[in-house]
Amino acid sequence: MDTNSQQCVIALDAMGGDNAPLVTVRGASQALQESNGRFNVLLVGRKSEIEKIIKQENLNFPSENIIHADDVIGMDDIPTTALKRKDSSLAVCVKLINEGKAHAFASAGNTGAVMTLSTLQLGRIEGINRPALGAIVPTLRNKCLVLDVGANVDLKPNNLYEFAIMGSVYMQEIFNVSSPKIGLLSIGEEDSKGNELTINANKLLRESKLNFYGNVEGRDVLKGEVDVIVCDGFVGNVVLKFAEGLLHFLVRKFKDSAEKSFLNKLRIGISKGILKDILKVFDYQEYGGVPLFGVNGISIIGHGSSSDLAIKNMIFRAYETYQHKIIERIRESIQKFHLIDN
Amino acid sequence: MDTNSQQCVIALDAMGGDNAPLVTVRGASQALQESNGRFNVLLVGRKSEIEKIIKQENLNFPSENIIHADDVIGMDDIPTTALKRKDSSLAVCVKLINEGKAHAFASAGNTGAVMTLSTLQLGRIEGINRPALGAIVPTLRNKCLVLDVGANVDLKPNNLYEFAIMGSVYMQEIFNVSSPKIGLLSIGEEDSKGNELTINANKLLRESKLNFYGNVEGRDVLKGEVDVIVCDGFVGNVVLKFAEGLLHFLVRKFKDSAEKSFLNKLRIGISKGILKDILKVFDYQEYGGVPLFGVNGISIIGHGSSSDLAIKNMIFRAYETYQHKIIERIRESIQKFHLIDN
Repeated sequence: MDTNSQQCVIALDAMGGDNAPLVTVRGASQALQESNGRFNVLLVGRKSEIEKIIKQENLNFPSENIIHADDVIGMDDIPTTALKRKDSSLAVCVKLINEGKAHAFASAGNTGAVMTLSTLQLGRIEGINRPALGAIVPTLRNKCLVLDVGANVDLKPNNLYEFAIMGSVYMQEIFNVSSPKIGLLSIGEEDSKGNELTINANKLLRESKLNFYGNVEGRDVLKGEVDVIVCDGFVGNVVLKFAEGLLHFLVRKFKDSAEKSFLNKLRIGISKGILKDILKVFDYQEYGGVPLFGVNGISIIGHGSSSDLAIKNMIFRAYETYQHKIIERIRESIQKFHLIDN
Repeated sequence: MDTNSQQCVIALDAMGGDNAPLVTVRGASQALQESNGRFNVLLVGRKSEIEKIIKQENLNFPSENIIHADDVIGMDDIPTTALKRKDSSLAVCVKLINEGKAHAFASAGNTGAVMTLSTLQLGRIEGINRPALGAIVPTLRNKCLVLDVGANVDLKPNNLYEFAIMGSVYMQEIFNVSSPKIGLLSIGEEDSKGNELTINANKLLRESKLNFYGNVEGRDVLKGEVDVIVCDGFVGNVVLKFAEGLLHFLVRKFKDSAEKSFLNKLRIGISKGILKDILKVFDYQEYGGVPLFGVNGISIIGHGSSSDLAIKNMIFRAYETYQHKIIERIRESIQKFHLIDN
């Protein structure tokens, strides 16, 4: 297998995620079947475990596409230890890319470890100081990309500016938005409102040639007035996880309400389908994963509790990122919108 | 009227809020009727407008309890301009406190203006460097006080420490929690996770004698494991407003779903009551308002879109704060948990 050949090769960390390797093997097999020859999938991890699942589940996955890796980085391992453990499935995925044997890799494993390995071993795109983690959120109009949602804390204004450039490229290429509107998450709509970071980032964005909408308040994130929202990874992470918590809270309250009376039980039985549809738009499984923006290679990060559907979608996200040449487009865009005082 | 007399006197900014003075006059009248003589209410604002509403609505509110103020600070006015406009309803409320003619004041008006006037003209409690805005949020167990939700940005660790002391006093006195558990909003549960601010605040809280639970992630805010959550006002504000936006998003999606088919319409008609009950726990009207923590006087801040019910409840919150001697309790607690290196 060689990346010089036409076909895109995607390495999947078979051991990454709460439900690995069962769901990763299933997801990889499904993705390969649906690929119609557009891409190939490698499963990286403990060969015997992977083969056992293939047999048990009666899956059709080629044995030569399994790349053995002995070690597994756990969900709770300290990210930097991943640098030393060269035999982990994650380390082997990154190695496959650096050796030109894969074009992209994807993992639902330890996010910190994926970020650390990707940043240090794939390197950063020139002009990007901090890689960012993105999340696709539903809005009343279209989807919106929020970044950073946890890769970085204590940022500088130019970091948010770089995020805006990268987010803009992604929404343009993948979601076909011709001139993505960029919002800056802050408190207060006026340019002068916010903290030191956002007030200065606002100035950079206003002076730039990006399609800057202005500040976006917390309550307007889901309105869909912008296509990209940039923020510090601390704030982005808190908000994203809070959304998760709030949805769980509502589902729980719905259930509690059902248990209170037979009539409520009937009512809820009836409206469950509707609630499910609504919550579906917030379901990460629908999307699968997002690239780690700013690293010099395709590294797709999925949710730890990914199902086989989410894994399959994550592989398709890796393919899209390859097909749309997101890395090259970011490189060009960074040149185009380059900050003079960086 | 004199605060030396036994009865608590509460001044309400009649002109503050999106629906003022109609809802403020209604709410004040209701509160006074339900006070059973425990407190008295003063309506501060344009006398002729207030009297017109009293007449139109056929309310029973004593004319001598209306204190005329000619000027009104608008919702969009720059907070600091409030300092110069001595004839505003807000400025007159604060003056009544400083002259000993009222024990507490409450406003659903321009939050920034209320904070600026309160902080500068009532002063800060000794040992408090930054006053904080709180919000009572529902959880799966009890209610939780989150502070700061917007009064301050770019904080130092000792500010969060002071918030923890004040929040602890409030939950103990008002919600009868014997030893309030304090959580620090961060990314990651481990003490070492977060940004520079939270990592250092974590250390201060760990070394203190406060009942510190540890870091709380965004997804755990509504679980109810803690009674107080402290955070920077930027993060707190974004999260609180995001929650508001997410609930609006869900209601809108439910409505859209109803319009799609007759069967859905039926289903939603049935489950509307349940959804309403669930959303009710998030309704700020139920609570009314919270004190601006750390100022040397009782200043209660309500939501701009307060209804008459919310205004009435806000007045009761002012009375509770007076009755439970929250200012004195905070002063004592600051002495008790004083930071040496402050």
